Amino acid sequence: MHPLNDLTPAEINAARGLVQSLHGSETLIFKAITLDEPRKQEMVAYLVAEMNGQRAVAPPRLAYCVYYLKSSDTLMTTWINLTTHAIARSEPADPTFHGNVDFDEVQQVEDMVMQDPTVLAEIAKLQLPDHLTVVAEAWGFGSDGGIDDRHRQYQVYMFVSETNNLDSNHYARPLNFSPVVDPVRMVVTRIEMLPTGVDDARAEGVTPYKDLGPNEYIPEAQTLREDLKPLTVAQPEGASFTIDGDNVLRWQKWHFRIGFNYREGIVLRDVRYDNQPLFYRMSLSEMTVPYADPRSPYFRKQAFDLGDVGAGLVANDLRLGCDCLGAIAYLDGWISDRKGRPLKKDNAVCIHEQDNGIGWKHTNYRTGRACVVRNRELVIQSILTVSNYEYILAFKFNQAGQIDYEVRATGILSTCAIDENQTVPFGTIVHPGVLATHHQHILSLRLDPALGSYTSGNQLAYTETTPIPHDAAHGNPHGNGYVSGTTTVPVSGGLDLNTERGRIFSIQNPSIRNPVNGLPASYKIHSPPLQKMLAAPDSIHFRRAEFADHEIYVTKYNEDELFSGGKFTNQSQGGTGIKTWVARQDRVEDEDIVVWVQFGINHVPRIEDFPVMPVEILTVSLKPVNFFTRNPAIDVPPSTQERNCSVRVEVGKEVSGGAHGAAACCERKSLL
Amino acid sequence: MHPLNDLTPAEINAARGLVQSLHGSETLIFKAITLDEPRKQEMVAYLVAEMNGQRAVAPPRLAYCVYYLKSSDTLMTTWINLTTHAIARSEPADPTFHGNVDFDEVQQVEDMVMQDPTVLAEIAKLQLPDHLTVVAEAWGFGSDGGIDDRHRQYQVYMFVSETNNLDSNHYARPLNFSPVVDPVRMVVTRIEMLPTGVDDARAEGVTPYKDLGPNEYIPEAQTLREDLKPLTVAQPEGASFTIDGDNVLRWQKWHFRIGFNYREGIVLRDVRYDNQPLFYRMSLSEMTVPYADPRSPYFRKQAFDLGDVGAGLVANDLRLGCDCLGAIAYLDGWISDRKGRPLKKDNAVCIHEQDNGIGWKHTNYRTGRACVVRNRELVIQSILTVSNYEYILAFKFNQAGQIDYEVRATGILSTCAIDENQTVPFGTIVHPGVLATHHQHILSLRLDPALGSYTSGNQLAYTETTPIPHDAAHGNPHGNGYVSGTTTVPVSGGLDLNTERGRIFSIQNPSIRNPVNGLPASYKIHSPPLQKMLAAPDSIHFRRAEFADHEIYVTKYNEDELFSGGKFTNQSQGGTGIKTWVARQDRVEDEDIVVWVQFGINHVPRIEDFPVMPVEILTVSLKPVNFFTRNPAIDVPPSTQERNCSVRVEVGKEVSGGAHGAAACCERKSLL
Repeated sequence: MHPLNDLTPAEINAARGLVQSLHGSETLIFKAITLDEPRKQEMVAYLVAEMNGQRAVAPPRLAYCVYYLKSSDTLMTTWINLTTHAIARSEPADPTFHGNVDFDEVQQVEDMVMQDPTVLAEIAKLQLPDHLTVVAEAWGFGSDGGIDDRHRQYQVYMFVSETNNLDSNHYARPLNFSPVVDPVRMVVTRIEMLPTGVDDARAEGVTPYKDLGPNEYIPEAQTLREDLKPLTVAQPEGASFTIDGDNVLRWQKWHFRIGFNYREGIVLRDVRYDNQPLFYRMSLSEMTVPYADPRSPYFRKQAFDLGDVGAGLVANDLRLGCDCLGAIAYLDGWISDRKGRPLKKDNAVCIHEQDNGIGWKHTNYRTGRACVVRNRELVIQSILTVSNYEYILAFKFNQAGQIDYEVRATGILSTCAIDENQTVPFGTIVHPGVLATHHQHILSLRLDPALGSYTSGNQLAYTETTPIPHDAAHGNPHGNGYVSGTTTVPVSGGLDLNTERGRIFSIQNPSIRNPVNGLPASYKIHSPPLQKMLAAPDSIHFRRAEFADHEIYVTKYNEDELFSGGKFTNQSQGGTGIKTWVARQDRVEDEDIVVWVQFGINHVPRIEDFPVMPVEILTVSLKPVNFFTRNPAIDVPPSTQERNCSVRVEVGKEVSGGAHGAAACCERKSLL
Repeated sequence: MHPLNDLTPAEINAARGLVQSLHGSETLIFKAITLDEPRKQEMVAYLVAEMNGQRAVAPPRLAYCVYYLKSSDTLMTTWINLTTHAIARSEPADPTFHGNVDFDEVQQVEDMVMQDPTVLAEIAKLQLPDHLTVVAEAWGFGSDGGIDDRHRQYQVYMFVSETNNLDSNHYARPLNFSPVVDPVRMVVTRIEMLPTGVDDARAEGVTPYKDLGPNEYIPEAQTLREDLKPLTVAQPEGASFTIDGDNVLRWQKWHFRIGFNYREGIVLRDVRYDNQPLFYRMSLSEMTVPYADPRSPYFRKQAFDLGDVGAGLVANDLRLGCDCLGAIAYLDGWISDRKGRPLKKDNAVCIHEQDNGIGWKHTNYRTGRACVVRNRELVIQSILTVSNYEYILAFKFNQAGQIDYEVRATGILSTCAIDENQTVPFGTIVHPGVLATHHQHILSLRLDPALGSYTSGNQLAYTETTPIPHDAAHGNPHGNGYVSGTTTVPVSGGLDLNTERGRIFSIQNPSIRNPVNGLPASYKIHSPPLQKMLAAPDSIHFRRAEFADHEIYVTKYNEDELFSGGKFTNQSQGGTGIKTWVARQDRVEDEDIVVWVQFGINHVPRIEDFPVMPVEILTVSLKPVNFFTRNPAIDVPPSTQERNCSVRVEVGKEVSGGAHGAAACCERKSLL
C-alpha cells in the first residue's frame, strides 16, 4: 500500500471499528473518515528513495475521524493508526466548532420540515392548486458573530415546484417564509418571515400564493435547437495516458498521483515532469461565497463550499458521454457515510485528453514552410453540486510544462422572493418575483511546491516591469526603455497583484539555476485579478473568510495546515486559518513553503444566468520560467492532415448535411 | 453585389486601371486597393430595408487606393467610384506619411542587402564555415521623433543560418551589424554596428564568427514524442454552419458577414443573434509592439503590425488538417500586389466548430437527475506571420450569445546578439549569445455596436460593486452588504478597469429595456487587465501608440475612423489617431458610438519561449447582460452518450493502445 493512497474501504471499516470501541454503545454520527497524510518529512524521504529506486520505509497509515456523540452532540476528532491498529489520539473539538453539513442530514432536515405541523400550517395558507407543491431546501445557518449561532442550525428556504415533476425549477418560485431547524433535536425552532422589499420590513404572515409562472431548464420544457450536428472526438488508438492501480497517472512526461477525499475532492500529489518534481501536493483548499444582501436573515448567507459541505462529498457521478468527449477514464472515490461505513462515490473523477487548438506555430516567410503542433491537454475533472449551484473543477496539464486549474461556475442562482415591481441594488430580478442576490465566489488554491527537488527550499518571488527614467543619464534618452526586476518575499504573509507594475508571482528554487541563463528554476502563477472580499473588514463575514483579502498568501510549511479558512468552517467565527499561520512571521526564503492563490468572481447576476447559468470560466495557470532550457513542447509531433483527418466544408452554397461530411474517417490524401 | 462584399478581382483591376489613367505612364507601386466602405448612414438604411424584406437602394461601390509614384516616392491616396467607373478623389498623402511595408519590397531589400558590396565585406570578416550562411531580415525603421526618420527606411538585421537548410532557426544566431536601407533608391545607406553589452557601446568592427550552436524548432531536428495517440474530431453529418456566396455565415441563430482586407484581416459586419442586430462592424484595429531596449538603434523598435504591415497581407495559407480539427471551411481573400493586380490570399480565413467543454449543468440532488449541455463554439480564424512572430486571431461565437475575440501569440522571439556572460535588465538570455528583449503587445479591438437596433443609439456604461457603509443607519448592520451601480459615460474619452471596484464595462441600448427586469439591453466586455504602455508619456513611442494608455476608449462614430493608431503608422509621429478623435469631446450617451478595447501582454521572455513560443492566449469576451430574457443556450440539446459517442478507458492497469479504444464509432449502449 503506497503511503499516499486514499483510505481503502477496509481501512475505513477498521478505523470506524476502533473509534466505536472508544465509545461503547454510544451512537456515533460520522462526518468524515479520511486519510491523515504522512508527515511531510517522512514522506519526502520515502519519495526520494522511491525516485532513486531505493528501498523506502513507509510511514504508518493514519486515519482522521470526525464524528458526533449523538447523545451529547459533542464533536469528536480521533486519529487511528491503521498500521498498528491503535487509537493514536482522541479529543473533543473546541465546543464552538461544528461538523460539516452532510446530505443525509440535509435530507432528514428537509423531510422533517415538510412534516412539521407549524410549517404545514404556513403551507396551507398558500392555498396551492393541485399541480403545485412545496419543496424545502436546507442551508447552513451561517454566522452572525455570536448572537444566535453558537449551536448548530439550519436555515431552510422554501420553494414551490410542480407536483408531478420534482425536476421543475423550484428556484423560479421562492416563498417568503423560512423554518429554522435544530438538527440535534431535529425540530423546527421557529419560522421566519423573509423580507421581500428593499429593507428588513416583512409581511405579517403567509398569504395565498400568486403563481408568476415557471422558468424551466429541463430539456423537455424547451423547443430544442435542431440544427446542431454531431461533433465527436475519436481516439482510435485509445488514450495517451495510463493510470496504475495506485492511481498514478502518466501522460506526456507528466507523472502524478490522483487522490480524492470528502473535503477537497481531487488532490494531486508528487507531481513531476520528465521525472523532475514540481509539486508535492496541489488541491483546492477552500471557497467562500458571501452574499451581498444585508437584510435579515440573508446577511448570514456565506457558504464555505469545501469546509461547510465538502467537494468530495457532493461530487457528481460522472457518466460516460455526458461530461467529456473522447476516451475517458473514471475513478471512484471512497468516503464514509453517517454511520462510518465506506461509501463509494462512483465516477467521482474523470480523466481525458482534449485538443486545445494550436500549441505553437511558425511559418518561415522565406521558404513558406509552416511548422505547427496542436496543444493536447490532459484534464482531471470533478463536478460538484452544492444545492443549487455547480462547480466544474479541473486540473489541466499541457505538453509545454504548464498546469492550469480551471473552475467553471454553472448551475442555478440562489434566489429569494421579491415584491413585484421592487428592485434592490444588491441583486437582479431574473424572473417575475424572483431576486438573485449579488455574491462573490472567492477560491483558495493550495500549492505545496517542490520545484526541481524535494530536498531543497523554494521561495515566492515577484517580477515587476517598470520604466527606466526618461533621460540620457539613465541610459534611456528616447524614453522607451523599461526593465524587469525580481523581489523575493522574505516573510510569510499576504500579497496582491499589481497590473500597473506588471507584477507576476513565481515560485522559485534558488538552488537550481538555468544552465543557459543562470536564472533560478521557476514556475510563474498567472491568476485573474480578484475583487477582494467586499464585506467590511470588521464584519464576521470578513473574519471567517481569512484568505479572501489577498490574491497570494505564502506560509512556511507546517503539518495540518491545509485549509486556509480553518478546519471547521460551519458557523465558524474565524481565527483558525491562514491569518493565524502568517502571523508567525516565518522566514520563507529558500524554505519549505506553501503558496495559496486566491481568485474568483463577483457575480452580479444577469437574467441570462437564469434558469441555469452558462459556464463562467476562471483559470489559474502555472507556467515554467527558466525551469527548462527551451520550449518543452518542441518535441510534439507536427500537426498534419494524416494525423488530424480533417474534412473540408464547401463554401458558397447552402451546405447540406452529409454532402461534404460523409468522410468521417481520414481522407488519406494530404493537401500538404 | 452586396455593398459590404469585399472588392472582387474585377473591381481591383478596374480601380487599378482608373488610377493608372490619372498618372499616364508613371510607374506606380501599389500598397493597397481595398473596399472603401459605404457611409454608415446609407448602409444602415440598406441593412434595415434588407432585414425588413424591403427593396434596398445600394450605396455606390468605392475603392480606396494607396500607392507611390515611383519617380517621386510621393504617396498618393485615390478613391474610385466603381459604380460610376470614375475617380472620386485623388490627393497626395501628407509627406510625413509612409505606406506600409509589403513583403515584395521586404524581399527586394533583403536580396539587395545580400548583394551589397559593403555588406558582403562585413560578411567576409565573419569567416563563416561552409555549412553556415548569412540571412538578412528587414524591419521597419521605426521612429526616433524626427531626427532621422523623415524618409522611409528599413533597418536590416543579420543572422546566421545553415547553408543547406534555410528552415534552420537563424534567430538563434544573430549578428552584431545592421545595414540601413533606403528603399526608394534601393541602396544600403550605412552599416551600423549593434550594441552587445548593457549600454550603447559597440564593437569597432565585425570579427570572425563564433558559433554558439543551433536551436532548431523544425521537427526533423527533434527526437519527437512517440506516445501521443491520435485524437480527431468527427462530424459525420458535416458542419452546422452555412456560408453563402456573399460570405454570409449562419450558425446557431448567429448571422454575420465575413469580410477580409489587407490591413485588418477579418472584418465581421452586420452581426446578429436571432435576427437582432448586435454589431455593425467588428475588427482588430491595431496592435503595437514596443520593445524595452533603450540602446541605439533598438530604441526605435516598435512595430504596428496592422498599420506597418497588414493583418491580411501576412495571413497564412491555412491548410486542411494543420490548423484546425473537424469539418473546416476556408475562405480566400483578395488583396492587391505591388502592381495593383488582384492577389489571391489562399485559405486566409478558416471556419470551424469546436467543443469547449460543458456549457451548463445542473444536477437535482433530490432526484439525481443531471441536465448538461456542451459548449459548441464557432471559430473564425486567421493566422499572421509578421517576420519572426505569429498571431492566431479568432472571433469565437457560442450558443449563449457570447462573442470572444481570442489572440494566441506564438512564433519566434525577436532576438539580438549579446556578449557571452552579459545580462541586461531589459531582456532574457534564451540561448548562448542570444538576447530576447522584453516587449509589450498592445492590441486595440474596434467594436461598432448596434445593440438591438441599427436606428437607436448605444452608450458605454460601467457597473461597479461597492460596500454599503457598515452601520445600521445604512441598512448594513452586519457589514456584509454591497451594491452595484451603473454609470453612463457622457463624453468620448479613455477609461480604465478597476478591480477594486469590480468595474465592468458594458455597451447598452438605453431605448430597449428588458421586459422582465426593466434593465437596459446590454453586452458587457470582459477583457484582461492591461499593463499600459511603459514608454514615457513624453516619448515618441508613446505618442505613436495613441490607444495604448487606456483599456477602453469610446468615440462618437465618424466616417473614416477605423485605425486607433492612425491611418499611416509606418515611421509615424502620432497625432492622427484616437487621441484626436476623443479630443472632440463628443457626447456619447444614446448616440452612434464606437468602443475600442485595448488589451495585451508585457512579454518578459522566458527561455521556454525559445526556439518557438508556446501559445500565450488572450481573450476579450462580450456577453449579453439583460439583453435576452433567459440563458440563450437553454435550448441546446442535452449532452448524451448517443450524441457524444465517448469511450471508457480501463483504469488500474497499464493501458495499451487499441485494447479499449477500438470502438471509435459510437457505443450505442448508453450508460445514462
